[in-house]
Amino acid sequence: MAEGEEAVSNKQVILKHYVAGYPKESDMEFKNTTIKLNVPEGSNVVVLKNLYLSCDPYMRSRMRKLEGSYVESFTPGEPITGYGVAKVLESGDSKFKKGDLVWGMTGWEEYSIATPTQDTLYKVHDKDVPLSYYTGILGMPGMTAYVGFYEVCSPKKGETVFVSAASGAVGQLVGQFAKMFGCYVVGSAGTKEKVDLLKSKFGFDEAFNYNEEQDLDAALKRYFPDGIDIYFENVGGKMLDAVLLNMKLHGRIAVCGMISQYNLENTEGVHNLFNLIAKRIRMEGFIVFDYYHLYPKYLEMIIPQIKAGNVVYVEDVAEGLENAPNALVGLFSGRNVGKQVVVVSRE
Amino acid sequence: MAEGEEAVSNKQVILKHYVAGYPKESDMEFKNTTIKLNVPEGSNVVVLKNLYLSCDPYMRSRMRKLEGSYVESFTPGEPITGYGVAKVLESGDSKFKKGDLVWGMTGWEEYSIATPTQDTLYKVHDKDVPLSYYTGILGMPGMTAYVGFYEVCSPKKGETVFVSAASGAVGQLVGQFAKMFGCYVVGSAGTKEKVDLLKSKFGFDEAFNYNEEQDLDAALKRYFPDGIDIYFENVGGKMLDAVLLNMKLHGRIAVCGMISQYNLENTEGVHNLFNLIAKRIRMEGFIVFDYYHLYPKYLEMIIPQIKAGNVVYVEDVAEGLENAPNALVGLFSGRNVGKQVVVVSRE
Repeated sequence: MAEGEEAVSNKQVILKHYVAGYPKESDMEFKNTTIKLNVPEGSNVVVLKNLYLSCDPYMRSRMRKLEGSYVESFTPGEPITGYGVAKVLESGDSKFKKGDLVWGMTGWEEYSIATPTQDTLYKVHDKDVPLSYYTGILGMPGMTAYVGFYEVCSPKKGETVFVSAASGAVGQLVGQFAKMFGCYVVGSAGTKEKVDLLKSKFGFDEAFNYNEEQDLDAALKRYFPDGIDIYFENVGGKMLDAVLLNMKLHGRIAVCGMISQYNLENTEGVHNLFNLIAKRIRMEGFIVFDYYHLYPKYLEMIIPQIKAGNVVYVEDVAEGLENAPNALVGLFSGRNVGKQVVVVSRE
Repeated sequence: MAEGEEAVSNKQVILKHYVAGYPKESDMEFKNTTIKLNVPEGSNVVVLKNLYLSCDPYMRSRMRKLEGSYVESFTPGEPITGYGVAKVLESGDSKFKKGDLVWGMTGWEEYSIATPTQDTLYKVHDKDVPLSYYTGILGMPGMTAYVGFYEVCSPKKGETVFVSAASGAVGQLVGQFAKMFGCYVVGSAGTKEKVDLLKSKFGFDEAFNYNEEQDLDAALKRYFPDGIDIYFENVGGKMLDAVLLNMKLHGRIAVCGMISQYNLENTEGVHNLFNLIAKRIRMEGFIVFDYYHLYPKYLEMIIPQIKAGNVVYVEDVAEGLENAPNALVGLFSGRNVGKQVVVVSRE
């Protein structure tokens, strides 16, 4: 019998049902299955051994029934899918070969069978950086920070920038990019530990803990007495309302996420949108999918910066697939410090 | 005694106090004053005889105490100010001479003394169109529709356009511009009469009465089964929320006004902003003040269109300064059909 034709065990993380409110570990379950690690004759699939899995806020929306959304719902009873880093065990696709390291869409399981398309699987070209970075700074969140800041925010040197969820997978990079660009940067986060990290590790000029502020408007006025030129929006709701009061004329709001709203059955209303007119603000939603053609350019910029130590990246690493549901759920209470990764296997 | 040195009577419309909630006629009062119609030696003021006054939604915000806004509060106890058309009786400014017809900022009174600056007073160049048009299609609302549609909406031929407050001073023009441009255009308004006007007079493809719709989302889905590319926002609140659900990918929302919110002590919350991300929408507030450099270009385009009958303009004309408070108040209940003008004097 040829290699791969014998079935091996393959533990999976299954979404049990669509989720209302905050997701719980009990919305997921483990399933022990088996899988054959071969590529059937004539097939163009690749067989992946999953190494790192990425926990990302956008995955929350996939836990409900979606119609016509930019992402697809997870299928109840099937493994969760998401970004990850994997090793190619067998390949029916000429762009990938056995032994390649790749990142892109994979399953929450030990082994996955994937059908690569242009934007779903990328080869890992540089191995002198931590492999897990391809779930973060060198993957989707890194590209999100890059295109959100440089392409959507239209930054100018000397402008004032506010980043919410600033220690997260995307926010920590937006802050560093904005500092490198010559902006004044303030971030908000939900714990003292994260606030300290923003200032000591990521070089934000200032940072505050939104949980300790009675009045977000007053907090923003404290750090931006002359107003905010650029808001990199990751949270939505009350924070957005307070920011609208503090934007400068011709300010820009890049809308990347609204994590504070994802688990609410009734989202918070935003009341201060008239400021868009009074201050001639451009508020623009974006999705990284539309910008992947810039990925090579981003790698060219970011890899030397990482190697030179000019850009740092903090990960929160959960060990083992068995801790994946807990890690994913933790995102929505802000338990993670930095980018949440799950290690399935280190090689 | 030289002409103008004798005082003549000058009736004024005074704002009595700052206004909360819907403005009432009783928030204003008439005052009989006198004025000398001469230019003091060495002064650069112009003496204006007011002919037409403009009632515009943005005036509502000036009835409250504003700080750091794009407009200034009215001064309680003083005449209301706003756009109007006037005749120059005397001029201390070399750019204007006796007998000139002008449009721009003036007072709600029979005669005003103005100090012209670059963006406050314009000469009426073409007198072959109704003079009152300089409060509407040839004035601030016309420029608002022009720059809002062409500069902010980034329209493409064949796109779908939705305009709220569509029979108003600005909306009726946005609809006509969008049709001329080759778009599919739907408007909303608050009475059957206005809806009929949209279709029969302004050439909107479809129109509906928002007061007769139980479900604005369903109404929009009826007229835009494939979604909205461009929303020209004049009303805010619930309509904006319904529109957000119906925008197409890469849609644009030009935020011109939010009249449904101006008289509310607590504005309605907008809940569907996540659609900005999912659909990569650009939502951009604008103010015509920033675009007056395009006014000559606009006149060059619009005057021939008016003369050829390709663009029409409907005005709601109140006769006499004594009806000005009633006309202004009527804007906020949507009583006006078309652009609300007050005739102070026809010559």
